[in-house]
Amino acid sequence: MSTGKFCTFEGIDGCGKSTQLARVAERLRGAGTPCLVTREPGGTAVSEKIRELLISPDNKGMCSEAELLLYLAARAQHVREVIKPAVDRGETVLCDRFERATFAYQGGGRGLDVDAIRGINGFATGGMEPDMTFIIDIPVEVSMERLKRIGKGTDRVESAGASFFERVRNAYVCAAEADPYRVKLLDGTMGIDELTDEIMGVIACAGG
Amino acid sequence: MSTGKFCTFEGIDGCGKSTQLARVAERLRGAGTPCLVTREPGGTAVSEKIRELLISPDNKGMCSEAELLLYLAARAQHVREVIKPAVDRGETVLCDRFERATFAYQGGGRGLDVDAIRGINGFATGGMEPDMTFIIDIPVEVSMERLKRIGKGTDRVESAGASFFERVRNAYVCAAEADPYRVKLLDGTMGIDELTDEIMGVIACAGG
Repeated sequence: MSTGKFCTFEGIDGCGKSTQLARVAERLRGAGTPCLVTREPGGTAVSEKIRELLISPDNKGMCSEAELLLYLAARAQHVREVIKPAVDRGETVLCDRFERATFAYQGGGRGLDVDAIRGINGFATGGMEPDMTFIIDIPVEVSMERLKRIGKGTDRVESAGASFFERVRNAYVCAAEADPYRVKLLDGTMGIDELTDEIMGVIACAGG
Repeated sequence: MSTGKFCTFEGIDGCGKSTQLARVAERLRGAGTPCLVTREPGGTAVSEKIRELLISPDNKGMCSEAELLLYLAARAQHVREVIKPAVDRGETVLCDRFERATFAYQGGGRGLDVDAIRGINGFATGGMEPDMTFIIDIPVEVSMERLKRIGKGTDRVESAGASFFERVRNAYVCAAEADPYRVKLLDGTMGIDELTDEIMGVIACAGG
Protein backbone atom coordinates (compact mmCIF):
# COMPACT_ATOMS: atom_id res chain seq x y z
CA MET A 1 0.00 0.00 0.00
CA SER A 2 1.40 3.38 -0.97
CA THR A 3 1.79 6.27 1.44
CA GLY A 4 -0.87 8.98 1.30
CA LYS A 5 -0.35 12.69 0.76
CA PHE A 6 -0.56 15.31 3.48
CA CYS A 7 -2.02 18.62 2.25
CA THR A 8 -2.67 21.68 4.38
CA PHE A 9 -4.89 24.70 3.72
CA GLU A 10 -3.81 28.03 5.15
CA GLY A 11 -4.70 31.69 5.10
CA ILE A 12 -6.18 34.44 7.24
CA ASP A 13 -9.75 34.12 8.52
CA GLY A 14 -12.35 34.47 5.83
CA CYS A 15 -10.00 33.46 3.00
CA GLY A 16 -12.16 30.47 2.09
CA LYS A 17 -9.74 27.70 3.04
CA SER A 18 -12.32 25.60 4.91
CA THR A 19 -14.75 25.84 1.97
CA GLN A 20 -12.03 24.89 -0.50
CA LEU A 21 -10.83 22.03 1.69
CA ALA A 22 -14.36 20.55 1.77
CA ARG A 23 -14.73 20.92 -2.02
CA VAL A 24 -11.34 19.32 -2.68
CA ALA A 25 -12.20 16.42 -0.35
CA GLU A 26 -15.47 15.88 -2.22
CA ARG A 27 -13.74 15.86 -5.59
CA LEU A 28 -10.97 13.53 -4.44
CA ARG A 29 -13.47 11.11 -2.88
CA GLY A 30 -15.53 11.28 -6.07
CA ALA A 31 -12.42 10.18 -7.93
CA GLY A 32 -11.91 7.27 -5.51
CA THR A 33 -9.12 8.74 -3.36
CA PRO A 34 -9.61 8.00 0.37
CA CYS A 35 -9.50 11.29 2.24
CA LEU A 36 -9.27 12.31 5.85
CA VAL A 37 -10.41 15.84 6.69
CA THR A 38 -9.15 17.40 9.90
CA ARG A 39 -8.26 20.76 11.42
CA GLU A 40 -5.90 22.59 13.74
CA PRO A 41 -5.95 23.28 16.53
CA GLY A 42 -8.02 20.16 17.05
CA GLY A 43 -8.53 16.82 15.32
CA THR A 44 -8.25 14.70 18.50
CA ALA A 45 -10.17 14.75 21.79
CA VAL A 46 -7.20 16.23 23.67
CA SER A 47 -6.41 18.73 20.90
CA GLU A 48 -10.02 19.94 20.75
CA LYS A 49 -9.87 20.60 24.51
CA ILE A 50 -6.69 22.61 23.93
CA ARG A 51 -8.51 24.48 21.14
CA GLU A 52 -11.20 25.49 23.65
CA LEU A 53 -8.53 27.02 25.90
CA LEU A 54 -7.03 28.89 22.94
CA ILE A 55 -10.22 30.43 21.60
CA SER A 56 -12.04 31.16 24.86
CA PRO A 57 -12.36 34.92 25.56
CA ASP A 58 -11.84 34.01 29.26
CA ASN A 59 -8.17 33.38 28.47
CA LYS A 60 -7.37 36.62 26.72
CA GLY A 61 -4.59 37.38 29.23
CA MET A 62 -2.64 34.40 27.88
CA CYS A 63 0.97 35.25 26.98
CA SER A 64 2.25 34.57 23.45
CA GLU A 65 4.67 31.89 24.66
CA ALA A 66 1.91 29.89 26.38
CA GLU A 67 -0.28 30.30 23.30
CA LEU A 68 2.45 28.92 21.03
CA LEU A 69 3.10 25.95 23.32
CA LEU A 70 -0.62 25.13 23.48
CA TYR A 71 -0.91 25.16 19.67
CA LEU A 72 2.11 22.86 19.47
CA ALA A 73 0.83 20.51 22.19
CA ALA A 74 -2.37 20.13 20.17
CA ARG A 75 -0.27 19.49 17.04
CA ALA A 76 1.95 16.86 18.70
CA GLN A 77 -1.12 14.82 19.62
CA HIS A 78 -2.80 15.41 16.24
CA VAL A 79 0.21 14.24 14.21
CA ARG A 80 0.72 11.06 16.23
CA GLU A 81 -2.90 10.07 16.78
CA VAL A 82 -4.50 11.08 13.46
CA ILE A 83 -2.35 12.51 10.65
CA LYS A 84 0.57 10.08 10.52
CA PRO A 85 -1.54 6.92 10.92
CA ALA A 86 -3.85 8.09 8.09
CA VAL A 87 -0.94 8.90 5.75
CA ASP A 88 0.60 5.52 6.62
CA ARG A 89 -2.70 3.82 5.68
CA GLY A 90 -2.45 5.50 2.25
CA GLU A 91 -5.09 8.17 2.82
CA THR A 92 -4.83 11.75 1.61
CA VAL A 93 -5.01 14.00 4.67
CA LEU A 94 -6.48 17.47 4.17
CA CYS A 95 -5.84 19.66 7.19
CA ASP A 96 -7.36 23.08 7.87
CA ARG A 97 -4.27 24.98 9.11
CA PHE A 98 -0.96 23.47 10.25
CA GLU A 99 2.59 24.69 10.82
CA ARG A 100 2.43 27.63 8.39
CA ALA A 101 -0.28 29.12 10.62
CA THR A 102 2.13 28.94 13.56
CA PHE A 103 4.85 30.82 11.70
CA ALA A 104 2.30 33.35 10.40
CA TYR A 105 0.26 33.98 13.59
CA GLN A 106 2.77 33.37 16.39
CA GLY A 107 5.84 34.47 14.38
CA GLY A 108 4.54 37.21 12.08
CA GLY A 109 1.54 38.23 14.18
CA ARG A 110 2.78 37.93 17.76
CA GLY A 111 6.46 38.52 16.95
CA LEU A 112 7.86 35.37 18.57
CA ASP A 113 11.32 34.28 17.43
CA VAL A 114 11.02 32.25 14.23
CA ASP A 115 14.00 29.99 15.00
CA ALA A 116 12.47 29.12 18.38
CA ILE A 117 9.16 28.32 16.67
CA ARG A 118 10.97 26.15 14.11
CA GLY A 119 12.75 24.15 16.82
CA ILE A 120 9.70 23.56 18.99
CA ASN A 121 7.48 22.84 16.00
CA GLY A 122 9.96 20.20 14.80
CA PHE A 123 9.80 18.58 18.23
CA ALA A 124 5.98 18.67 18.16
CA THR A 125 5.65 17.17 14.67
CA GLY A 126 8.52 14.70 15.01
CA GLY A 127 9.66 16.08 11.64
CA MET A 128 6.41 15.36 9.78
CA GLU A 129 5.83 18.06 7.14
CA PRO A 130 3.03 18.62 4.64
CA ASP A 131 3.67 17.41 1.09
CA MET A 132 1.76 20.42 -0.16
CA THR A 133 0.50 23.62 1.47
CA PHE A 134 -2.13 25.85 -0.13
CA ILE A 135 -2.12 29.42 1.13
CA ILE A 136 -5.28 31.21 0.05
CA ASP A 137 -4.37 34.86 0.05
CA ILE A 138 -6.85 37.72 0.43
CA PRO A 139 -6.39 41.38 1.43
CA VAL A 140 -7.07 42.07 5.09
CA GLU A 141 -10.02 44.35 4.20
CA VAL A 142 -11.66 41.47 2.33
CA SER A 143 -11.13 39.24 5.36
CA MET A 144 -12.73 41.83 7.67
CA GLU A 145 -15.73 42.30 5.36
CA ARG A 146 -16.32 38.57 5.02
CA LEU A 147 -16.04 38.01 8.78
CA LYS A 148 -18.48 40.84 9.51
CA ARG A 149 -20.93 39.45 6.98
CA ILE A 150 -21.03 36.10 8.84
CA GLY A 151 -21.11 37.75 12.28
CA LYS A 152 -17.64 36.58 13.36
CA GLY A 153 -14.73 38.50 14.81
CA THR A 154 -15.21 38.19 18.55
CA ASP A 155 -12.69 35.50 19.47
CA ARG A 156 -9.31 36.21 21.01
CA VAL A 157 -7.17 36.07 17.88
CA GLU A 158 -9.67 37.81 15.65
CA SER A 159 -9.99 40.70 18.07
CA ALA A 160 -6.25 41.41 17.64
CA GLY A 161 -6.96 43.92 14.86
CA ALA A 162 -6.00 44.80 11.30
CA SER A 163 -2.25 45.39 11.77
CA PHE A 164 -1.97 41.96 13.36
CA PHE A 165 -3.63 40.41 10.30
CA GLU A 166 -1.35 42.37 7.94
CA ARG A 167 1.70 40.83 9.63
CA VAL A 168 0.10 37.38 9.46
CA ARG A 169 -0.69 37.79 5.76
CA ASN A 170 2.85 38.98 5.02
CA ALA A 171 4.32 35.97 6.81
CA TYR A 172 2.12 33.65 4.74
CA VAL A 173 3.24 35.33 1.49
CA CYS A 174 6.91 35.06 2.54
CA ALA A 175 6.46 31.34 3.29
CA ALA A 176 5.27 30.75 -0.28
CA GLU A 177 8.15 32.77 -1.70
CA ALA A 178 10.68 30.81 0.38
CA ASP A 179 9.43 27.35 -0.63
CA PRO A 180 7.45 27.72 -3.90
CA TYR A 181 7.44 24.00 -4.75
CA ARG A 182 5.68 22.89 -1.59
CA VAL A 183 3.84 26.07 -0.63
CA LYS A 184 1.40 27.40 -3.24
CA LEU A 185 0.06 30.94 -2.95
CA LEU A 186 -3.42 31.25 -4.44
CA ASP A 187 -5.56 34.32 -5.02
CA GLY A 188 -8.55 33.93 -2.70
CA THR A 189 -10.56 36.64 -4.48
CA MET A 190 -11.02 34.53 -7.61
CA GLY A 191 -14.22 32.56 -8.19
CA ILE A 192 -14.90 29.64 -5.88
CA ASP A 193 -15.02 27.03 -8.69
CA GLU A 194 -11.95 28.42 -10.39
CA LEU A 195 -10.01 28.20 -7.11
CA THR A 196 -11.02 24.57 -6.56
CA ASP A 197 -9.94 23.77 -10.13
CA GLU A 198 -6.57 25.36 -9.51
CA ILE A 199 -5.99 23.40 -6.28
CA MET A 200 -7.06 20.14 -7.96
CA GLY A 201 -4.61 20.89 -10.78
CA VAL A 202 -1.74 21.28 -8.34
CA ILE A 203 -2.67 18.05 -6.52
CA ALA A 204 -2.90 16.18 -9.85
CA CYS A 205 0.53 17.48 -10.92
CA ALA A 206 2.00 16.39 -7.58
CA GLY A 207 0.70 12.86 -8.22
CA GLY A 208 -1.92 12.94 -5.47
CA MET B 1 13.41 47.44 46.99
CA SER B 2 15.54 44.32 46.68
CA THR B 3 14.69 41.38 44.43
CA GLY B 4 13.08 38.36 46.09
CA LYS B 5 14.26 34.77 46.02
CA PHE B 6 12.70 32.03 43.93
CA CYS B 7 12.77 28.63 45.66
CA THR B 8 11.29 25.42 44.29
CA PHE B 9 10.37 22.18 46.06
CA GLU B 10 10.70 18.95 44.13
CA GLY B 11 10.48 15.21 44.56
CA ILE B 12 8.33 12.22 43.72
CA ASP B 13 4.75 12.06 44.98
CA GLY B 14 4.46 11.53 48.70
CA CYS B 15 7.95 12.92 49.45
CA GLY B 16 6.52 15.67 51.66
CA LYS B 17 7.44 18.66 49.49
CA SER B 18 4.03 20.34 49.77
CA THR B 19 4.05 19.95 53.56
CA GLN B 20 7.58 21.32 53.81
CA LEU B 21 6.76 24.21 51.50
CA ALA B 22 3.83 25.23 53.70
CA ARG B 23 5.98 25.00 56.85
CA VAL B 24 8.81 27.02 55.32
CA ALA B 25 6.31 29.69 54.17
CA GLU B 26 4.93 29.91 57.71
CA ARG B 27 8.37 30.27 59.24
CA LEU B 28 9.48 32.88 56.69
CA ARG B 29 6.29 34.91 57.19
CA GLY B 30 6.73 34.62 60.95
CA ALA B 31 10.17 36.18 60.47
CA GLY B 32 8.68 39.02 58.40
CA THR B 33 9.64 37.81 54.90
CA PRO B 34 6.83 38.33 52.37
CA CYS B 35 6.13 34.99 50.70
CA LEU B 36 4.15 33.87 47.71
CA VAL B 37 3.20 30.19 47.62
CA THR B 38 2.33 28.64 44.27
CA ARG B 39 2.46 25.35 42.39
CA GLU B 40 3.03 23.73 39.01
CA PRO B 41 1.33 22.90 36.84
CA GLY B 42 -0.96 25.75 37.89
CA GLY B 43 -0.69 29.06 39.69
CA THR B 44 -2.72 31.07 37.16
CA ALA B 45 -6.25 30.65 35.81
CA VAL B 46 -4.97 29.46 32.41
CA SER B 47 -2.33 27.19 33.95
CA GLU B 48 -4.86 25.58 36.28
CA LYS B 49 -7.04 24.77 33.25
CA ILE B 50 -3.99 23.17 31.61
CA ARG B 51 -3.42 21.23 34.84
CA GLU B 52 -6.94 19.80 34.55
CA LEU B 53 -6.12 18.51 31.06
CA LEU B 54 -2.88 16.96 32.34
CA ILE B 55 -4.30 15.10 35.31
CA SER B 56 -7.66 14.01 33.89
CA PRO B 57 -7.90 10.23 33.38
CA ASP B 58 -9.95 11.03 30.22
CA ASN B 59 -6.71 12.14 28.56
CA LYS B 60 -4.59 9.08 29.30
CA GLY B 61 -3.95 8.56 25.55
CA MET B 62 -1.95 11.81 25.50
CA CYS B 63 1.49 11.42 23.88
CA SER B 64 4.61 12.41 25.84
CA GLU B 65 5.38 15.30 23.50
CA ALA B 66 1.94 16.88 23.99
CA GLU B 67 2.24 16.34 27.74
CA LEU B 68 5.60 18.14 27.84
CA LEU B 69 4.32 21.07 25.78
CA LEU B 70 1.26 21.44 28.04
CA TYR B 71 3.44 21.53 31.16
CA LEU B 72 5.61 24.18 29.53
CA ALA B 73 2.63 26.23 28.32
CA ALA B 74 1.39 26.31 31.92
CA ARG B 75 4.88 27.35 33.06
CA ALA B 76 5.24 30.13 30.47
CA GLN B 77 2.07 31.76 31.79
CA HIS B 78 2.97 31.11 35.43
CA VAL B 79 6.43 32.72 35.17
CA ARG B 80 5.16 35.86 33.41
CA GLU B 81 1.91 36.38 35.32
CA VAL B 82 2.90 35.33 38.85
CA ILE B 83 6.48 34.29 39.62
CA LYS B 84 8.52 37.05 37.97
CA PRO B 85 6.25 39.91 39.13
CA ALA B 86 6.42 38.60 42.73
CA VAL B 87 10.20 38.24 42.68
CA ASP B 88 10.46 41.75 41.17
CA ARG B 89 8.29 43.07 44.05
CA GLY B 90 10.84 41.60 46.49
CA GLU B 91 8.78 38.60 47.61
CA THR B 92 10.17 35.14 48.22
CA VAL B 93 8.38 32.75 45.87
CA LEU B 94 7.99 29.15 47.03
CA CYS B 95 6.84 26.93 44.19
CA ASP B 96 5.67 23.32 44.46
CA ARG B 97 7.48 21.75 41.46
CA PHE B 98 9.13 23.62 38.58
CA GLU B 99 11.64 22.79 35.84
CA ARG B 100 13.39 19.96 37.71
CA ALA B 101 10.10 18.05 37.62
CA THR B 102 10.06 18.40 33.84
CA PHE B 103 13.55 16.94 33.49
CA ALA B 104 12.71 14.19 35.99
CA TYR B 105 9.22 13.18 34.76
CA GLN B 106 9.30 13.96 31.03
CA GLY B 107 13.05 13.32 30.61
CA GLY B 108 13.84 10.54 33.09
CA GLY B 109 10.33 9.08 33.31
CA ARG B 110 9.02 9.38 29.76
CA GLY B 111 12.42 9.25 28.05
CA LEU B 112 12.10 12.50 26.07
CA ASP B 113 15.34 14.03 24.82
CA VAL B 114 16.87 16.15 27.59
CA ASP B 115 18.41 18.71 25.20
CA ALA B 116 15.01 19.25 23.58
CA ILE B 117 13.43 19.73 27.02
CA ARG B 118 16.18 22.20 27.97
CA GLY B 119 15.59 24.26 24.82
CA ILE B 120 11.82 24.41 25.08
CA ASN B 121 11.91 24.99 28.84
CA GLY B 122 14.25 27.94 28.30
CA PHE B 123 11.77 29.39 25.82
CA ALA B 124 8.90 28.85 28.29
CA THR B 125 10.65 30.44 31.27
CA GLY B 126 12.36 33.21 29.30
CA GLY B 127 15.51 32.13 31.14
CA MET B 128 14.10 32.53 34.66
CA GLU B 129 15.63 29.90 36.95
CA PRO B 130 15.14 29.12 40.64
CA ASP B 131 17.70 30.56 43.03
CA MET B 132 17.39 27.40 45.08
CA THR B 133 15.78 24.01 44.47
CA PHE B 134 15.05 21.53 47.26
CA ILE B 135 14.70 17.94 46.13
CA ILE B 136 13.16 15.84 48.87
CA ASP B 137 14.29 12.33 48.16
CA ILE B 138 12.48 9.17 49.28
CA PRO B 139 12.66 5.56 48.06
CA VAL B 140 9.90 4.63 45.60
CA GLU B 141 8.48 2.06 48.06
CA VAL B 142 8.04 4.78 50.67
CA SER B 143 6.27 6.95 48.08
CA MET B 144 3.91 4.09 47.18
CA GLU B 145 3.11 3.36 50.84
CA ARG B 146 2.43 7.01 51.64
CA LEU B 147 0.20 7.44 48.56
CA LYS B 148 -1.80 4.32 49.41
CA ARG B 149 -2.25 5.51 52.96
CA ILE B 150 -3.89 8.74 51.76
CA GLY B 151 -5.93 6.95 49.05
CA LYS B 152 -4.10 8.49 46.08
CA GLY B 153 -2.54 6.85 43.05
CA THR B 154 -5.30 6.95 40.46
CA ASP B 155 -4.25 9.86 38.28
CA ARG B 156 -2.52 9.49 34.91
CA VAL B 157 1.06 10.03 36.03
CA GLU B 158 0.75 8.07 39.22
CA SER B 159 -0.66 5.04 37.40
CA ALA B 160 2.57 4.83 35.36
CA GLY B 161 4.07 2.37 37.86
CA ALA B 162 7.15 1.77 39.99
CA SER B 163 9.81 1.62 37.24
CA PHE B 164 8.62 5.01 35.98
CA PHE B 165 9.07 6.46 39.47
CA GLU B 166 12.54 4.89 39.78
CA ARG B 167 13.65 6.71 36.64
CA VAL B 168 12.10 9.95 37.91
CA ARG B 169 13.87 9.60 41.26
CA ASN B 170 17.21 8.90 39.57
CA ALA B 171 16.84 11.97 37.37
CA TYR B 172 16.19 14.10 40.47
CA VAL B 173 19.27 12.71 42.22
CA CYS B 174 21.40 13.37 39.11
CA ALA B 175 20.14 16.97 38.97
CA ALA B 176 21.41 17.57 42.51
CA GLU B 177 24.76 15.97 41.71
CA ALA B 178 25.16 18.14 38.59
CA ASP B 179 24.42 21.46 40.31
CA PRO B 180 25.00 20.99 44.07
CA TYR B 181 25.09 24.71 44.90
CA ARG B 182 21.61 25.48 43.60
CA VAL B 183 19.97 22.06 43.88
CA LYS B 184 19.90 20.55 47.38
CA LEU B 185 19.10 16.88 47.85
CA LEU B 186 17.41 16.21 51.18
CA ASP B 187 16.50 12.94 52.87
CA GLY B 188 12.70 12.85 52.94
CA THR B 189 12.61 10.02 55.46
CA MET B 190 13.97 12.19 58.28
CA GLY B 191 11.63 13.77 60.83
CA ILE B 192 9.32 16.49 59.58
CA ASP B 193 10.67 19.18 61.94
CA GLU B 194 14.28 18.24 61.28
CA LEU B 195 13.68 18.56 57.52
CA THR B 196 12.11 22.02 57.90
CA ASP B 197 15.10 23.09 60.03
CA GLU B 198 17.49 21.88 57.35
CA ILE B 199 15.67 23.76 54.57
CA MET B 200 15.49 26.94 56.69
CA GLY B 201 19.24 26.61 57.31
CA VAL B 202 19.96 26.48 53.59
CA ILE B 203 17.71 29.49 52.91
CA ALA B 204 19.40 31.45 55.72
CA CYS B 205 22.88 30.63 54.34
CA ALA B 206 21.77 31.77 50.87
CA GLY B 207 20.79 35.12 52.34
CA GLY B 208 17.04 34.58 51.83
